[in-house]
Amino acid sequence: MEISSYFPIWDSLTPGEQSQILQASTLMTVSAGQHIHDGTRKCTGLLVVASGRLRAYIISEGGREITLYRLLGKDMCLFSASCIMHSLQFDVMIQAEKDTSFWLIPTDTYKKLMSESVVISNYTNEILASRMSDVVWLMEQVMWQSSDVRLATFLLEESALEGSTKLSITHEEIANHLGTAREVVTRMLKYFQSEGLVTLSRGSLEIINPTGLKERQN
Amino acid sequence: MEISSYFPIWDSLTPGEQSQILQASTLMTVSAGQHIHDGTRKCTGLLVVASGRLRAYIISEGGREITLYRLLGKDMCLFSASCIMHSLQFDVMIQAEKDTSFWLIPTDTYKKLMSESVVISNYTNEILASRMSDVVWLMEQVMWQSSDVRLATFLLEESALEGSTKLSITHEEIANHLGTAREVVTRMLKYFQSEGLVTLSRGSLEIINPTGLKERQN
Repeated sequence: MEISSYFPIWDSLTPGEQSQILQASTLMTVSAGQHIHDGTRKCTGLLVVASGRLRAYIISEGGREITLYRLLGKDMCLFSASCIMHSLQFDVMIQAEKDTSFWLIPTDTYKKLMSESVVISNYTNEILASRMSDVVWLMEQVMWQSSDVRLATFLLEESALEGSTKLSITHEEIANHLGTAREVVTRMLKYFQSEGLVTLSRGSLEIINPTGLKERQN
Repeated sequence: MEISSYFPIWDSLTPGEQSQILQASTLMTVSAGQHIHDGTRKCTGLLVVASGRLRAYIISEGGREITLYRLLGKDMCLFSASCIMHSLQFDVMIQAEKDTSFWLIPTDTYKKLMSESVVISNYTNEILASRMSDVVWLMEQVMWQSSDVRLATFLLEESALEGSTKLSITHEEIANHLGTAREVVTRMLKYFQSEGLVTLSRGSLEIINPTGLKERQN
């Protein structure tokens, strides 16, 4: 497994840039649940996901969470290296949702490359624009979608990510993704069950009528 | 009035880059209330604000609004030129809040400069990071702050922007900034009035106890 197959614009880099990244980056693995970046503005480094899944979330002083976006294979995480840009003034937590392998590129290495290479700098622009789009989409959902529509959307996305209609996820975890209270999730899931959309078990649920869930989104 | 005094990284540009911007940009003026960019993904161009004030907001299908951020003199607006990046996948409306002068830089010119100059590309990264920070901050407010705290924050910011404790703003306009309903704003303002924090008149209000408003934020 080589970073060259996972770093998205590898073929556009010069041999010198490639070798700087190869020399500086370290392949690491973390277990599901583990935190990679704890949200302070210290610089963990940039992450390039090889396999598994990470989630980026923000957390309130009172401990409430909401997921901003997820990172899968070949995705790059900038916000674990927020010191690469002065203007990144927020704290994101990065947690492994599954056992995850990633390359850690030290901040200094990436910062140097970004200051020298217009290709890497513009690629960074695309990543920022993409995350910004995710967050604005989320803002629209939070502001203007009812909780049941957001829950239906989340369950369908989760099912697509897992490639299964059976989801091993607790009500608490769903609440932390959606930024809502566990009680609200439990009430809505019970309603979905009474409508024949899902069946609930302890620590898991199964989607039995995906078409019905999709219709909720309209 | 020259763009050279308003374009934030002017002195870091090469003479060639400076002359491309000088030749391509046009100084324009719009009246308070006018829309400069209507939120579709067409490319109006990049805006560099000379004077006045713009607000960037998103709007729901049902017509509800929320302000994402404001742009003042020397601020640059990228999202009116979202076609410069593939990954910018959201629609922002840009409206003049006051009579506003700005330079319009055509998208093609900026896109070419960004693809050639690491300085301009990295500056674009800083702008994106700054707007992303604004939107994540807003997300935190929307998710975890009560409406009265957000209203107190908004009134104090507005007072600082205007340099006055008298604000010519309707309840409807405040609601559109905060992404809430006019009735909610009216109810909270009446409560603030009963607490001796503001006095209300038709189409305007006055902050009479700024310290009391600040205390609300804690």
